[in-house]
Amino acid sequence: MGISVDTFFLELNGQGTLQAQIQQMIAEGILSGRFHVGEKLPSSRKLASHLGVSRITVTLAYTELLANDYLTARGRSGYYVSENAPVPPKYTPIQRGTETVDWDKALARRFVDSDVLPKPWNWRDYTYPFIYGQADRTLFDHANWRLCAVRALGHKDFESLTRDYVDQDDPLLIEFIARHTLPRRGISARPEEILITLGAQNALWLASRILLTHNHTAVIEDPCYYALRSLLNHWDCAVVPIGVDKDGLPPEALPDETDVIFTTPSHQSPTTATMPITRRRQLLDRARDLDAMVVEDDYEFEMAFLGAPSPALKSMDRDGRVIYVGSFSKSLFPGLRLGYMVGSEPFIREARALRSLVLRHPPGHIQRTAAYFLSLGHYDAQIRRMSKELSKRRDAMDKAIDEYGLSVAGRGVMGGSSMWMSAPEHVDMSQLARSLQIQSVHIEPGAPFFAGPDRPQNFYRLGYSSIAPDRIAPGVKLIADAIQTQ
Amino acid sequence: MGISVDTFFLELNGQGTLQAQIQQMIAEGILSGRFHVGEKLPSSRKLASHLGVSRITVTLAYTELLANDYLTARGRSGYYVSENAPVPPKYTPIQRGTETVDWDKALARRFVDSDVLPKPWNWRDYTYPFIYGQADRTLFDHANWRLCAVRALGHKDFESLTRDYVDQDDPLLIEFIARHTLPRRGISARPEEILITLGAQNALWLASRILLTHNHTAVIEDPCYYALRSLLNHWDCAVVPIGVDKDGLPPEALPDETDVIFTTPSHQSPTTATMPITRRRQLLDRARDLDAMVVEDDYEFEMAFLGAPSPALKSMDRDGRVIYVGSFSKSLFPGLRLGYMVGSEPFIREARALRSLVLRHPPGHIQRTAAYFLSLGHYDAQIRRMSKELSKRRDAMDKAIDEYGLSVAGRGVMGGSSMWMSAPEHVDMSQLARSLQIQSVHIEPGAPFFAGPDRPQNFYRLGYSSIAPDRIAPGVKLIADAIQTQ
Repeated sequence: MGISVDTFFLELNGQGTLQAQIQQMIAEGILSGRFHVGEKLPSSRKLASHLGVSRITVTLAYTELLANDYLTARGRSGYYVSENAPVPPKYTPIQRGTETVDWDKALARRFVDSDVLPKPWNWRDYTYPFIYGQADRTLFDHANWRLCAVRALGHKDFESLTRDYVDQDDPLLIEFIARHTLPRRGISARPEEILITLGAQNALWLASRILLTHNHTAVIEDPCYYALRSLLNHWDCAVVPIGVDKDGLPPEALPDETDVIFTTPSHQSPTTATMPITRRRQLLDRARDLDAMVVEDDYEFEMAFLGAPSPALKSMDRDGRVIYVGSFSKSLFPGLRLGYMVGSEPFIREARALRSLVLRHPPGHIQRTAAYFLSLGHYDAQIRRMSKELSKRRDAMDKAIDEYGLSVAGRGVMGGSSMWMSAPEHVDMSQLARSLQIQSVHIEPGAPFFAGPDRPQNFYRLGYSSIAPDRIAPGVKLIADAIQTQ
Repeated sequence: MGISVDTFFLELNGQGTLQAQIQQMIAEGILSGRFHVGEKLPSSRKLASHLGVSRITVTLAYTELLANDYLTARGRSGYYVSENAPVPPKYTPIQRGTETVDWDKALARRFVDSDVLPKPWNWRDYTYPFIYGQADRTLFDHANWRLCAVRALGHKDFESLTRDYVDQDDPLLIEFIARHTLPRRGISARPEEILITLGAQNALWLASRILLTHNHTAVIEDPCYYALRSLLNHWDCAVVPIGVDKDGLPPEALPDETDVIFTTPSHQSPTTATMPITRRRQLLDRARDLDAMVVEDDYEFEMAFLGAPSPALKSMDRDGRVIYVGSFSKSLFPGLRLGYMVGSEPFIREARALRSLVLRHPPGHIQRTAAYFLSLGHYDAQIRRMSKELSKRRDAMDKAIDEYGLSVAGRGVMGGSSMWMSAPEHVDMSQLARSLQIQSVHIEPGAPFFAGPDRPQNFYRLGYSSIAPDRIAPGVKLIADAIQTQ
């Protein structure tokens, strides 16, 4: 590819002759790694006219650079960056002078947070990746996804690809979710009650932004998905963590000042507890008494391979107080960034307006591709295939855990894709997770899921959605051995 | 496609016999439009096992529905929704009971805003669509975009498609923007200084969220992009609109308490004024004196077909106080939702963390597709083609405006894709825009761009990025005629 003439600028009041300035500009481009070996320079005519200098000035600059081996000439076709030119390994722009902005003052709000789970970038290189929530190359129906994506790139779908939806969504996707996806959770919703989001994270963010201000109290489960805690910390509201038990969030523990309850009834995250139906009723009753809203994160209901999933909390909601959050990240892949929320129309109307301010709408092509993948039945087939395979892995997990004597703190009664584990109390699993990396074992320490400063250090999560079944037993053995030696 | 067994739930304590409940469930599915004609029902064996009832109960229910013509049987292959079943035109879920949530109380924050520009959903059906910022089917290189998208769906790119980037971006796209796109604006930036955003709107939102709190003062241009004003209204900061002149934002008018300045120096939005280089220096000097940050929205620099675009304000920034916002919405298509921001590392670090909380990252497939489209040179070719065509349309605009005596309030000296127009003071262009719709003319009234209650009503914007050249003159004539009769 040629180097565009538009990347050349003469400095106003630049130093030296025009020719020298042009030479320097090109040499700097090469030295900084911005121009690569073999890239073609603009013709002298073009560059001269662009910079408003005479053509001979540019020609002289080029000739000089040719002599210095920065450039090479190929007959009539022009000038190229020479193979002999000094080339740094990577583009490193010339350092600007020292910046003078006082960032402590300029940054009115801070968001960088050390409280995130370290996820190794290269987890696929691990022999025993007990990682959670990543796509398994062997399970994802890549071929059909590609076919659907290609179809959504066709001329017929030009509108859905390119259009500015402003605050709207792809009607095809919305209709499918209303007709097929939500009924599986016992939920009936009209299109006006559904909003597509950029993943579940985006849905949780939107809901919390709308429902909470500084004089509100939000209840979260403890332990819980740490990114939820991080985002709530920015709304200046009170955040009350309530310890979960084997049935999930206990409704009687909700404080009287509760305004919004964030809960994961299908599979509590991360303990995997499923809330029984009687407790769900109690939770909704308690929410009614408190006049509190409920945000239900139903992040992996599809992974129910051990029994029919119970209907969502939302399906039992007669008041309109449950906001339901769903996601395709676990069942398709996380890089898709596609989720949805369901709520009463007054709420979705606000969420739609807020989403429009923040990001307009999830890209049209992705929405249409998902609509095709769902409506052609590939999604259901994929879920069946995943369930079958996850069921196998779950068996292997159960066996290995039994054999090597690890201790389970929670395992989904209906399936799921991870187990919540505990080591003896004196074991620091964050440290152990780090040392297991050397043996190519990746596990997730549990401490970041807990609220407050005195977090138990002895919990950890074993995801089995991305590890091959035959790796499970040897991996579990390595973990058991490591815990033994503590 | 078959109807999934998972969409069937028996109510706890449901009314009537089990058989009656099953019949009712299916009939309701059909009557509500959730099940479509020809869709296959689960086998009686499957449904029975899913619901935990005996198979004969399901069979009896099916037989009854067959007799009532809701279902039809096709030999051994099973039961289908009958063609004779009553079908409503659209899925309308059975109404739930009256909801009891008090939304005035539950919605802690409101975002619905009447102050948005009405954009007709069907603008492509207009004969004279003087619309702004939409993709032109005849100019966009759909074929090569598709090729790049398909390549990005290949096995080699499985990782960039599916992975959870958490707070990171596609390194290919970042590298290309650093090496090729930003140098065109005179900007040199390291990868750590660049963040991909979900369009320019998302970048403006992130920047304002980080830089502003309640005791801050933000300066905006007046008139300005109305969605910027809407989003600033939610940070509880003071927002001071400063009237622009023919050179854009006048630096001497900035109040002493200014903390953040939002500006569009390349093409002021919507007046199209280009800020001269001397004023840019003054603006940066004034910002330094005020110790204020500057957010530069460079939303359509590519559309410079009448002269070389001047380098971005950011290229002159030695302090690190300019946050640069770029977008591919105008040059590619708005449904892509892809933009980027450039700033000093301390700022980008916060923006990265905030983006991660709000939406994680723009979908990997879109980032990789754009990286291919850019690096294979299709983007440059597309810009050249668009520039050529826009230049033609601009000529047609100039001629028609001259001929029919419309009055131009601003037209980009370097190009652009719209003109800022004024009618005589007594003309209400919002009203006129509505009445022009009947003649299949779409224009954008200017009032929503202005701040405050006393907005001039006589301005309007004529976009020429989506209208065929031969439609321009007759369209302008219709507008001129309409203004005449006022």
